[in-house]
Amino acid sequence: MQKYIVGVDIGGTTIKLAIFPVGERAIHTWEITTTDREHITEIWKDIADAIRAKFAELGYDMTQLAAVGMDLPGPICDNGYLPWCVNLGMGACYPAEELSKVLDGIPVAACNDANAAALGEVYYGAAKGADNAALFTLGTGVGGGIIVGGKIVAGNRGVGGEVGHFVVNPDETEKCNCGNRGCLEQYTSATGMVRVAKRLMAKGQLKSKLYDLPEIDLTAKAICDEAKEGDELGLEVIDVYSKYLAIAASHIALTIDPDVIIIGGGVSRAGKILIDKVEEYFIEYTHIAEKKAKFVIAELGNDAGTYGSAALASQLL
Amino acid sequence: MQKYIVGVDIGGTTIKLAIFPVGERAIHTWEITTTDREHITEIWKDIADAIRAKFAELGYDMTQLAAVGMDLPGPICDNGYLPWCVNLGMGACYPAEELSKVLDGIPVAACNDANAAALGEVYYGAAKGADNAALFTLGTGVGGGIIVGGKIVAGNRGVGGEVGHFVVNPDETEKCNCGNRGCLEQYTSATGMVRVAKRLMAKGQLKSKLYDLPEIDLTAKAICDEAKEGDELGLEVIDVYSKYLAIAASHIALTIDPDVIIIGGGVSRAGKILIDKVEEYFIEYTHIAEKKAKFVIAELGNDAGTYGSAALASQLL
Repeated sequence: MQKYIVGVDIGGTTIKLAIFPVGERAIHTWEITTTDREHITEIWKDIADAIRAKFAELGYDMTQLAAVGMDLPGPICDNGYLPWCVNLGMGACYPAEELSKVLDGIPVAACNDANAAALGEVYYGAAKGADNAALFTLGTGVGGGIIVGGKIVAGNRGVGGEVGHFVVNPDETEKCNCGNRGCLEQYTSATGMVRVAKRLMAKGQLKSKLYDLPEIDLTAKAICDEAKEGDELGLEVIDVYSKYLAIAASHIALTIDPDVIIIGGGVSRAGKILIDKVEEYFIEYTHIAEKKAKFVIAELGNDAGTYGSAALASQLL
Repeated sequence: MQKYIVGVDIGGTTIKLAIFPVGERAIHTWEITTTDREHITEIWKDIADAIRAKFAELGYDMTQLAAVGMDLPGPICDNGYLPWCVNLGMGACYPAEELSKVLDGIPVAACNDANAAALGEVYYGAAKGADNAALFTLGTGVGGGIIVGGKIVAGNRGVGGEVGHFVVNPDETEKCNCGNRGCLEQYTSATGMVRVAKRLMAKGQLKSKLYDLPEIDLTAKAICDEAKEGDELGLEVIDVYSKYLAIAASHIALTIDPDVIIIGGGVSRAGKILIDKVEEYFIEYTHIAEKKAKFVIAELGNDAGTYGSAALASQLL
């Protein structure tokens, strides 16, 4: 009888679910609303109910469920321990054990959302077949995932892949959201890019059409668009951005020697102008490596979580 | 019948060998001279002969040899490929296959020497029992090794653990031995430390007893010794050193989340004054990690290679 895996991607407002025939791509996807913070301990029952209802609707038997994978926006250690999850208002627990309990002991695996995205790209997306890989998600913040030997590296403290908080400029004076100063996220997130642009604009040494924009329109996209047209200040922002991202990427390259470095998140949509510059600095910063890791743009988009979770679950079989 | 593993540590002038009862520490160690560069392709036969002769001398039968591990001073990819080994004058080959061929097909594994040292510390030394670990060898140059899930991470290009060539200062004007500029090795090797001291001395802004030393006596040890006595310039060198090493260590920590970071090599003998400062910056640079990796001093010294090679061989059983 056909066996299925379910991938569960838990976000702050929505839980995405998808059913995968073992070894294949998703054939059914659906969403439920994330359990509210006051009743967050009921989230496991809510997910189990959603899976049971969908299986009933499709005429599948629950014995056909081989394993469940899930990701959530918090650090999960190698032993499955989640110390906290601020975004969900969740305290310390073992998420996989909790969900398995309410699913009659079906095997469940859990990981951090950026780690799931990295594994998803390796199993189904832009990094298919890579042994070692690194993902940067460049959005409002900067996240990441590290894959070694086809497996997520989370570590015993769950900070594997916390690439957004690499200190790349110890001389920085402004604080990062994490409370530290000089983190990669302060330069290479969408907000970081705007921050760098504003700083350069305040100095007033470079010509730019960005001065003419109302502040609300000064976005990462606007900066990249102007840079593509040759805007002096826009190009300088791209340069700062690329230098710091390349430093982080090169340090990862000389640590785990990834086959590919995957770039995801909203900022990755700036595309070629950004990636080309990052790769240029990366090649310089990995002088010692005769052959270089390739840069690729993430392919799975909003499905990265469910696909990555399913990939993680498949490692239980 | 008792089974044995042999660990072989190939250096530029000497090959160290050691016999380990499976799962135990070395019971016999000996050395042979490294095959000269003109006859380097005979090195495999030389090693096999040395093992056979020692087994005969000890009254062991060759059927008691379960596996051989070896390390050498060059990059070895995950598939066993060595693209080159400048220090031995060796061209591209698969070292483990070559040695196995002249040992009647006995299983052989090979890795880079710094990687072996890291694995040795995890199996037998300062990092015993760690799942993930990172080693910095701070000597004439700076090498390193990365362990994830108890295994060496070399990668498909063999540059896993090339931590000495992390670019930590993109604004550096002087060149590293690798041809790049701003590598960790330029600040945290023994020669790098002297270079930093000379630069600060040329500026002449800090008081120091180091000005009174003849140039030949201006060594990493002398700098550390003066720093311990409160020498202004000596302390500044330690500060620069610690900042850069902590940046590299923190980036590794937020990549693979090591349980311990092992410090080895001659410079590590400076001991507490250096490690304390490195750890101080490391804690600052890993602000996001609630629990921190521990710093430990390498324990195996000159035996790291044979012990690490034996550990690698044991993974074949």
